[in-house]
Amino acid sequence: MFTLYYAPHTCSLASHIALEDAGARYELRRIDFGKTEQQSPSYVAINPKARVPAMATPRGTLTETPAILAFIAQSFPKARLAPIEDPFGFADVQAFNSYLCSTLHVAHAHRMRGHRWVDDPVAILAMKKKVPQSVGDCYDLIERQMFKGPWVMGDTYTIADPYLFTLAQWLEADGVDPSRIPRVVEHRSRMMELPNVKKTIADELTN
Amino acid sequence: MFTLYYAPHTCSLASHIALEDAGARYELRRIDFGKTEQQSPSYVAINPKARVPAMATPRGTLTETPAILAFIAQSFPKARLAPIEDPFGFADVQAFNSYLCSTLHVAHAHRMRGHRWVDDPVAILAMKKKVPQSVGDCYDLIERQMFKGPWVMGDTYTIADPYLFTLAQWLEADGVDPSRIPRVVEHRSRMMELPNVKKTIADELTN
Repeated sequence: MFTLYYAPHTCSLASHIALEDAGARYELRRIDFGKTEQQSPSYVAINPKARVPAMATPRGTLTETPAILAFIAQSFPKARLAPIEDPFGFADVQAFNSYLCSTLHVAHAHRMRGHRWVDDPVAILAMKKKVPQSVGDCYDLIERQMFKGPWVMGDTYTIADPYLFTLAQWLEADGVDPSRIPRVVEHRSRMMELPNVKKTIADELTN
Repeated sequence: MFTLYYAPHTCSLASHIALEDAGARYELRRIDFGKTEQQSPSYVAINPKARVPAMATPRGTLTETPAILAFIAQSFPKARLAPIEDPFGFADVQAFNSYLCSTLHVAHAHRMRGHRWVDDPVAILAMKKKVPQSVGDCYDLIERQMFKGPWVMGDTYTIADPYLFTLAQWLEADGVDPSRIPRVVEHRSRMMELPNVKKTIADELTN
């Protein structure tokens, strides 16, 4: 049994979908960002990074979306969520997820979380201004070079799919014109129709 | 046979050390950042992200340090560079590396690569100003909460060790007082004495 610490509309959705895809037994624990519960002593004791997701397991708590996704794929091999026995194939999936984590999500975070990297309010505004370009450049690269189709890694659904889907929720708010990345947007629409995705989104809002 | 595309004094050193640790056959290909060779058409054809590291393999090219490190660990199981058969243990290593990639390295990059996220020169200066704090906060978390000792993950050397060692080269230049993170600094000193580390650093400078 796992416990996923999550907040709606954050990247924790990717791990939530993967848990559902894996057929894992898990419970949800919502962290209330509206009350900055992620910074509360009780949550920081669980995840000193004061962010979501965190996932409690019988062995200890995991953080970082790419690591949690890899853990789920490796723990539930029958779900075939990544080519875990193939070092190149598994690394190729992880390279995609690492890019989402360290480049796309980071570019996005400059719109809402600029205080992580700068104090000056004028600089925070200047950061927001560049988000459509910096996030847009990431999506252009994904659209043209990285997305294989019909799933992220090609013919087979993997842990890269719920992660891209999750971050792609935010692209319009980041000022990216969806018409320039039709494959990413078509993937997002197709993901939205999957029963597991519908269930996780509904569960996050009602939990 | 692999080809590692690298530049001295960048995060590609982590993958280079891991290749040496694994006993892999590889060749080095230096990318001249002084001539912005990373943006040249010939290199962008290899790595559209225009960054290092990239590693050519018989199956294709891998990017992203956490993925390359996981690939090396999984491809050379006898080197025992990660607990690859243990989903939790492997994910725990990858969570550490993911943090380095998406949080510590990103905080550091605001000193030299601020143009990725902002255009205004005044805002770029404001970003630089916060680097000692943002990078310092990452090291405090590593020192107090994440570093197990004597190696990053505890008693056993893993792919997290060359990665932390590589990024820790930059902490003084980022304005972090090394005296506040004695365990990280002691680890860096101990890593520096390893024959494979000495060899890779020497090879990067003479290649």
